[in-house]
Amino acid sequence: MSHQPPVVILARPQMAENIGSAARAMMNCGLSDLRLVNPRDGWPNEAALPMAAGGAEIIRNAQLFDSVAAASHDVSLVLAASARRRDLPIRDADPRTASSLVVEHNGQAALLFGPEASGLDNDEVAQADILVTAALNPDYPSLNLAQAVLLLAWEWRVAMLAANKHAATATPAGPPPSAIAERDYFFQRLEQALDDGGFFTSPEMAPTVKRNIRAMFNRAAPTSQEISTLHGVIQALTKQRKSPDKSG
Amino acid sequence: MSHQPPVVILARPQMAENIGSAARAMMNCGLSDLRLVNPRDGWPNEAALPMAAGGAEIIRNAQLFDSVAAASHDVSLVLAASARRRDLPIRDADPRTASSLVVEHNGQAALLFGPEASGLDNDEVAQADILVTAALNPDYPSLNLAQAVLLLAWEWRVAMLAANKHAATATPAGPPPSAIAERDYFFQRLEQALDDGGFFTSPEMAPTVKRNIRAMFNRAAPTSQEISTLHGVIQALTKQRKSPDKSG
Repeated sequence: MSHQPPVVILARPQMAENIGSAARAMMNCGLSDLRLVNPRDGWPNEAALPMAAGGAEIIRNAQLFDSVAAASHDVSLVLAASARRRDLPIRDADPRTASSLVVEHNGQAALLFGPEASGLDNDEVAQADILVTAALNPDYPSLNLAQAVLLLAWEWRVAMLAANKHAATATPAGPPPSAIAERDYFFQRLEQALDDGGFFTSPEMAPTVKRNIRAMFNRAAPTSQEISTLHGVIQALTKQRKSPDKSG
Repeated sequence: MSHQPPVVILARPQMAENIGSAARAMMNCGLSDLRLVNPRDGWPNEAALPMAAGGAEIIRNAQLFDSVAAASHDVSLVLAASARRRDLPIRDADPRTASSLVVEHNGQAALLFGPEASGLDNDEVAQADILVTAALNPDYPSLNLAQAVLLLAWEWRVAMLAANKHAATATPAGPPPSAIAERDYFFQRLEQALDDGGFFTSPEMAPTVKRNIRAMFNRAAPTSQEISTLHGVIQALTKQRKSPDKSG
């Protein structure tokens, strides 16, 4: 199992801005090796860098090739991204399945993307091992080039993190919820204060209303600090005396 | 279980081009309801449409609001996208888990994104139910705005399609959570009542304390019925005036 990030190959990209945005998306997801096949407006291109933002180094290190085959010279698994299925005898996979294959692959993999207007041609697709098609809105499945790069780079990242148990997203634990006894004490105080305020108009319904209030607060799993805050809330609310109470 | 797509709320977006790209990403994933809160360069903005491509209709139908609360008026689950965790007592989730919650949610959900340069501020995050943080490259986790929209829209789409396949096993849902506007009204009333009761002893800390209280109640995802109950609680507690207040 390899956690080496896949390389990204952009075949005949048209807009240098999109190359820059693709580099940013790669950087966001921890990919770094960008290869360009015959970019329309030449290379290097100064329009790429501003869009690359934190991925500027990826733009500066991008390599130029004159064919998909040359760009894939050291690659042993090529995934071709396409908005549509092809009439070609090629395996296809959704992005999530394809990303698992990349993570399981023992060798260098590549994600291959075609030009903005037309996508990959069938000769380019035929050089790939797997055609990756995302189940996007059938009314408009065409992703912007950099968005397509992000989508596959993100799916690779999630698959890689899941496979790499040690790097998986262990979230730092917050403070633990308050003890049941602390909550119970708060609830009793609240219920007493509510009773004093004439909240429970129907004695038969009072137990149900109390249970519902307890359940709602319990859903929030308040911490000890928050229980203290809630005691302060009762304190503040019950000592409010702006005008004499005509009923009391 | 609802397969209604989430609305997308862009808080204080800076570049109209990014609004256009976000609309395209929404269209790709089958989302359609775009809401803008105080876009920096005004609205409508002609720079948005060219980037929207097949999502032009989303741009034309985008609605303008003057606050996140107003933009969330009919929403009962808000996911705030952030590149970083916050020091707020709010649930957090990765994009995949959060997307499952949206699909399981019985009501309208929203994806909330902050401005390009700074992201959401803490007051905006405190209005959300869940903070969504993607496990991106820690060296450069900052996604372009439209890329962030694509990432969450795509994760929603995959979760929705998966849930469709398993629709037969869906369990009946409980009553939906209250709308954000209902909660906001309750919070304002509570904060006013607390202020009247001298709860906020330190003016500098008051905004933080208010955010923490809001976040705690939001964690409970109170229903409309429960919000009514909470109004009754304030009513009952504040009318309790056993003795004159020496400080008031």
